[in-house]
Parts: sequence; structure tokens; C-alpha cells
Amino acid sequence: MRGSPGEASPIIPEVVILRLPLYVRVLSQLQEDGAEVVSSQELGDRLGVTPAQIRKDLSYFGRFGKQGRGYNVGFLVGELREVLGLDREWNTAVVGVGRLGRAVINYPGFAPEGFKLLAAFDADPTQVGGQVGGLTVLAIADLERVVKEEKIHIGIVAVPALQAQDVIDSLVRCGVRAILNYAPIAPRVPEHVRVRSIDPVLAMQTMTYYLKRGPGRRTGGVA
Amino acid sequence: MRGSPGEASPIIPEVVILRLPLYVRVLSQLQEDGAEVVSSQELGDRLGVTPAQIRKDLSYFGRFGKQGRGYNVGFLVGELREVLGLDREWNTAVVGVGRLGRAVINYPGFAPEGFKLLAAFDADPTQVGGQVGGLTVLAIADLERVVKEEKIHIGIVAVPALQAQDVIDSLVRCGVRAILNYAPIAPRVPEHVRVRSIDPVLAMQTMTYYLKRGPGRRTGGVA
Repeated sequence: MRGSPGEASPIIPEVVILRLPLYVRVLSQLQEDGAEVVSSQELGDRLGVTPAQIRKDLSYFGRFGKQGRGYNVGFLVGELREVLGLDREWNTAVVGVGRLGRAVINYPGFAPEGFKLLAAFDADPTQVGGQVGGLTVLAIADLERVVKEEKIHIGIVAVPALQAQDVIDSLVRCGVRAILNYAPIAPRVPEHVRVRSIDPVLAMQTMTYYLKRGPGRRTGGVA
Repeated sequence: MRGSPGEASPIIPEVVILRLPLYVRVLSQLQEDGAEVVSSQELGDRLGVTPAQIRKDLSYFGRFGKQGRGYNVGFLVGELREVLGLDREWNTAVVGVGRLGRAVINYPGFAPEGFKLLAAFDADPTQVGGQVGGLTVLAIADLERVVKEEKIHIGIVAVPALQAQDVIDSLVRCGVRAILNYAPIAPRVPEHVRVRSIDPVLAMQTMTYYLKRGPGRRTGGVA
């Protein structure tokens, strides 16, 4: 081992970090299927990246594989979960309880992965005080107090496009450093804040280029 | 111009194609705000990439900018929409009409962008024949026939994780070359098929690494 994965150097490229949760997902699938060892070739096949890329990505976090023997699935998934901070719970709050916000609040996938939804906010006074998914909807005026009291780590933005940047600015002012954005905008955040956008239209628009051109070779890569 | 954007070389890296819809989004915002010209600096600021990256990305499609004068917003957005195939309609079908599939079917963002939802399928016989969002739910057995009759370009997969790979395989067998996947799996598709996954848990898991380590410099990039 080059050192504990938890002490990994902060110069790991973001593109590597973006791939790692998918590694964890695939390794967890392999683990459920009873696999004990996986080669970089098989892992690469399942992820759509080259075995060389797998080895390079994982080399940032220590020496997980033995030459010619592949990776121990259970050990690797455990270490990567720890590197990514998936071995603990994270507190989240949703802003916007319209149709999209309600779908997010009722999405069953967050809790099993350690993402706890602790608060919901809306700018519309007729929504405030109502119940959504077991939460009482709070006013935006309460955002700063509640984000601090509940130690919210991740803000989930599900407001219309026109309000989204203001809401993101408010969350950042409250000290939130990670934002999951469902609004169809290109959000601007300070250097120390991360934002990921969930945007099915944008995802479709990255495929039509290829549809327009007919079948051809895929250039590869995790997307 | 180095040539018509429509005749762009097929060797454009996929990472560039992945960024272009966001360029279109930001340029459309600028256009709505009445901007006629934008510099690569301002475009880069809004997208979180360097001006040099903007210039390099756009150089694949022809010479859009005049030295020192910036880009004509209306012209650039029009050309990029044509390059990406956003100037026409695309036919889509949803597989899976559970909670997630219903949210997808009722999502108001697709139609205005030219993505027409023409069919919905489900494996559950109690769902088949029911109405969802103006569509009659069809059986999976009808998939191949309907995909061909309706000329479906994009398959939207909203089934549980365990069924997702089988559904994706079926769509691919029917000739679908673009898949929007909502199931939390790492799908495997042949070289000529593109798949994009909408996965909020995965997106959150790409941020916890940074939350765990405290505030620090962002490495940048569109994500």
C-alpha cells in the first residue's frame, strides 16, 4: 500500500473521482453475485473503460491488485467506499416541493445509500406548513437557520429555472458545499462548492449528435 | 468556415459532444437576455471551463468567432443546435410505468425540446392497457413491433435495477441506438449504441469525497 486510502493526495483529478462511484456500483454487483476476485479487464468491460484506465485510476488510492491475480472484490469495494465517504451518512435538504421536488422527496434510492433527507423548503407561502414525504415544508426564510441546525451537507435544488441560481446562492451563503441541481440551468458556484446537475434533456441532447450521423464506432468512456 | 458544421469530422472526441448541449443551454440563456455577442471568456466563466477550452471545442465545427470580437450568440446557438441534431424532433418510448416511469412520462421538459414520447411499455400485466400521461401502456411483447412502427429513436428505461439490462438488450435488438437509463446499474451496450444514465445517487456520491475532505480548491470542469 502506498498509504492509507483515507490520506489520499488531494491532487486526484476530478475525472477520476467522477468515475469511482460507478466502480463501487459495479463492484457491489459483483459482490452480490458472489465474485471474490475481478480482473481489470472484466471491470473495464463492465464500465466501458480500458483495463489500463482502471489500473491508473485505482493507483491513486494505493495498490489494490496483485500482479496477474486481479482485485479482491470485497476489499476493493470497502476501500473505495471509505475513500468516497460512502461509509457514513450525509444530511440533505430539498428546496422546491413542486412536482419535481415531490418526486425527489419520494425517490426511494437515497436513504439506503446513506443520504438522509432532513428538511424541505419552498418559496410559495401556500406550500409552507404542508406535509411532503413526512416532512413539514419550511419557508425559504428558515433556510439558513435550519441548514445550520440540521448540519445539512448537500442541498437539492428542485425549483424552476428562473429561481434556481438564487436558491443555489442562498445555499452557498449558508455554507453548503455540495449541490444536486435539478433545474435546467448551468449553475455558477464558487471554487470550493461542487454542483452536479440531473438533467435528462441535456443527457438526451448528448446522444442526438450520434443518432443524426447513423451507426458508427463509439469513442468510449464512462458517461 | 472550415466546412459546414453538418459535415463535421466523426473524430470529434465524445467529451466535446458531452459539453455542447450545455453550451447551447447557456447561449440560449444569453440570447433570451438579449446578448448579441459573447466572448470565450464569458462563455467559459458561465460553463466552468477555460476560454481556451471553449475555443478548442468550437474549432471542431468551424470558425465561429472573429479574433477579438467574440462569438455571435444567435449564429453560434443555431449552428450548434444543427450540429447536435436539436433542430428536429426525436421519437422516444418509455419502458417501465412504475413511480419513476410515471414521473418521466409526466416530466414537462422533454416535449419543448423536441423529444416526443410516443409509447410506454411495462412487463406487469396489471399495468398493460392502463392510461399514463395520455398513452396506453403496452406489453413488452409489443416492443419490437411498436419501436419499428413508431420509428423510436431513444429508449427511456425506468424499470427496477434487476430488469434493466434485459430491457436495454431488447431495445438494442430492436435497433434503438440511444438509451436514457434511470436504473441504478452500469449498463452494457454494443459499440454502436449510446447510453446515458440519470442517477442522482451516483451524482451525490461524486461529491461526498470532497465533503469528507473539507473546503479546498476545485479542480474545475463541467460535470
